[in-house]
Amino acid sequence: MERLGSQDLPTPAGAAELSAAPEGSRVTVHGAVQRIRRLSWGAFVVLRRHDGLVQCVLQADTDGGAMQRLQEESCVEMAGTIHRASMKDPSIMPRDTEIHVESVRILSEPASPPPVDLTKKILDLHIDTNLDLRPVSLRHPVERARLRIASALEADFRRYLSSRGFTSIRSPKICFAGAEGGANIFRVQYFDRTAFLAQSPQFYKQMAVAFYERVFETGPVFRAEPHQTSRHVNEYTSLDFEMGYISSFRDVMLMEAGLLRSMIETAGRECAYELELLGATLPSVPDSFPCVTLAEAHEIAGAASGRDYSGEPDLGPEEEKLVCEHSSREWGSEFVFVTHYPTSKRPFYTMDDPLTPGFTLSFDLLFRGLEITTGGQRIHDYDMQVAKMQSFGLDPAAFESYLAAHRTGLPPHGGLAIGLERLTARLLDVDNIRLTTMFPRDAKRLTP
Amino acid sequence: MERLGSQDLPTPAGAAELSAAPEGSRVTVHGAVQRIRRLSWGAFVVLRRHDGLVQCVLQADTDGGAMQRLQEESCVEMAGTIHRASMKDPSIMPRDTEIHVESVRILSEPASPPPVDLTKKILDLHIDTNLDLRPVSLRHPVERARLRIASALEADFRRYLSSRGFTSIRSPKICFAGAEGGANIFRVQYFDRTAFLAQSPQFYKQMAVAFYERVFETGPVFRAEPHQTSRHVNEYTSLDFEMGYISSFRDVMLMEAGLLRSMIETAGRECAYELELLGATLPSVPDSFPCVTLAEAHEIAGAASGRDYSGEPDLGPEEEKLVCEHSSREWGSEFVFVTHYPTSKRPFYTMDDPLTPGFTLSFDLLFRGLEITTGGQRIHDYDMQVAKMQSFGLDPAAFESYLAAHRTGLPPHGGLAIGLERLTARLLDVDNIRLTTMFPRDAKRLTP
Repeated sequence: MERLGSQDLPTPAGAAELSAAPEGSRVTVHGAVQRIRRLSWGAFVVLRRHDGLVQCVLQADTDGGAMQRLQEESCVEMAGTIHRASMKDPSIMPRDTEIHVESVRILSEPASPPPVDLTKKILDLHIDTNLDLRPVSLRHPVERARLRIASALEADFRRYLSSRGFTSIRSPKICFAGAEGGANIFRVQYFDRTAFLAQSPQFYKQMAVAFYERVFETGPVFRAEPHQTSRHVNEYTSLDFEMGYISSFRDVMLMEAGLLRSMIETAGRECAYELELLGATLPSVPDSFPCVTLAEAHEIAGAASGRDYSGEPDLGPEEEKLVCEHSSREWGSEFVFVTHYPTSKRPFYTMDDPLTPGFTLSFDLLFRGLEITTGGQRIHDYDMQVAKMQSFGLDPAAFESYLAAHRTGLPPHGGLAIGLERLTARLLDVDNIRLTTMFPRDAKRLTP
Repeated sequence: MERLGSQDLPTPAGAAELSAAPEGSRVTVHGAVQRIRRLSWGAFVVLRRHDGLVQCVLQADTDGGAMQRLQEESCVEMAGTIHRASMKDPSIMPRDTEIHVESVRILSEPASPPPVDLTKKILDLHIDTNLDLRPVSLRHPVERARLRIASALEADFRRYLSSRGFTSIRSPKICFAGAEGGANIFRVQYFDRTAFLAQSPQFYKQMAVAFYERVFETGPVFRAEPHQTSRHVNEYTSLDFEMGYISSFRDVMLMEAGLLRSMIETAGRECAYELELLGATLPSVPDSFPCVTLAEAHEIAGAASGRDYSGEPDLGPEEEKLVCEHSSREWGSEFVFVTHYPTSKRPFYTMDDPLTPGFTLSFDLLFRGLEITTGGQRIHDYDMQVAKMQSFGLDPAAFESYLAAHRTGLPPHGGLAIGLERLTARLLDVDNIRLTTMFPRDAKRLTP
């Protein structure tokens, strides 16, 4: 028997610590060789580390000519001294520090050179090549930066809501029925029967409002959309919350406004390196968000395009773009809420507006021409929910365990879902949502 | 157009704030009626809130006899004044405060009384009934407490690792192959082909070590185990991490020791109410964890039982129990690492121990008689991984996108997976893992 773990394993120094280390102090770092620039006197070797790329300087004779043994994607440990420097390349971090290397230890070596040139400033591959080679292409600092920002957004979603009395839940992904209905649902062979992959945690988060009042979940959801577009993937991360004891569906929008402000400000602070590398600037979140009804949105889009959208049951892509442009220009907000979608276009759990028959207490949040959130107030009353299911042609018996929650009482409640990858793509002005996904899934893509 | 969200939505006062509010101060609270005790002069009404149960006192004539209109599971808003009190019932929180109610507003009402008695101290249902009625049974304070503790453990897993240079990842759950092999894999109809549900994020977290050095994920995994036991469910939450640049597989165990210490201490601090309600005490985490090889574990178990386990390729349930008892008694630790499982019993990505041929640099962590973690060092060298696949009878071509990571170089790395529900169950001494799962899935259960 031996004993292990009387002290925490030390965390390797991050970029900030390297930058703070005094000139001439000794340091040992590890990383993968991102690029090597060989010169007559030695080489600049840039190491990829978890939070940046550090520049290491080797002389021709350093450690018996170690620079000759290095290749791209070798994993190494280097010991040396800290020197102040000033570098302009935004992929370097820290940019004010380089390491003058004295010894090199090679920890592992690739079997082949990378199939793409990871030393370029921009990877600049066809998207299919990029995605086919994801285990390699994500080693490029620009490629990995997008995912790091998505992680920061998700982390702050969890932190912000936790600090406001929300409890995190983990709902099942193998389900007996789809929450959103429709044909876009994946089937699973579940022992001797057929089950479905969750399109959203909708039913579960509503049930959980009865135990915890306010709940959130960040997790995968699955949509069997057969068509390939730049803004859809078939598996994505849904940032969901649901809150009880609301006085109106506006409470959900108010919560979202504060939440998005926090997420964007936090990501801006924590991911300054990644944002500069991407050349992206996060939007300023306005003090208040403009909010129009669907009918008003149609008027705005109609005035801009000269077309008549009145009576359309939804906003088309063109209208979403026009409304966002209007909001940006006239109201100084890249975010705009659109409310009161018709009953027929919203799921059966959506609360109708008693003051506007045929329309719902629901909303979308549009941002830079795209819907990034859908939310609203849900039906909490049992009889009202049963009646609406019936009017939708659904059999309440098929939803017995969901309706058990309504039958035994639910508080007035509402919530929303934000697609993490889509939000990240819009914030960073990335054309294709796949680039904000580590290993995207679409109708044609199941690997890597 | 209206404008929304210039101020954050206020967070309702939690139990701590009620407890801190001065005697006689006015307060408005909302909640669901958990229980009513009617007396000649009025009633005690206990409201279920997100972080506790608050006692409200109504006189017979309060708000026009409002107490007569209340029923269990009504959702209400009550306004009144804070009074100091002293209550012994551990379900009440805060226990030093009650609210003398002046007005009552009913927000929603159940259509039927609860199908189980939620007013009892312990729900005491057959587990099948409890699980069938999950949308109701989780309204019982003891039932929901277990899940709250699981949420606290998960949150601290994320927090601790984030503070140590780990990046969170979101790996796909619909996969082209199973990481763990074997028959226990669910099939998904993925458009015109068959895909699989992820048994673990293993392949993806290893690939991600190349971009981020240290990664973690908390998410669902799926195992098509047909047999029903009290310690298995078919969908559970896996707490995964993977770290690059390790010097030995002991680094992974050291990281886990610090991580578990933090998770357990944090849950103990944040969930004091839930723990008291459950009558549970979290274990003290020892300063260091005992660590034995599988061969040593066999000897220990053999000495205790008089049986000969030597040469067994794994630890059976009886041995796990005996080793834990020994560790507790002799070494003062309820946690014990067992290392060096044979090559044949560990997945193909496990690193063999060059010093102990036929055995791996892998470990299990046992706790209270059960394995709660499996981990180890992984193979990072391409040729070594290909050779091991072949020796396992696997076709490397079937793992091309996984092997692309090895071919292009990976640092020495290792990691582990902790089953959240199983950890929670063992920490709380809950017999059946299903009770630590919100909506469990097993071969017979697909609802709620």
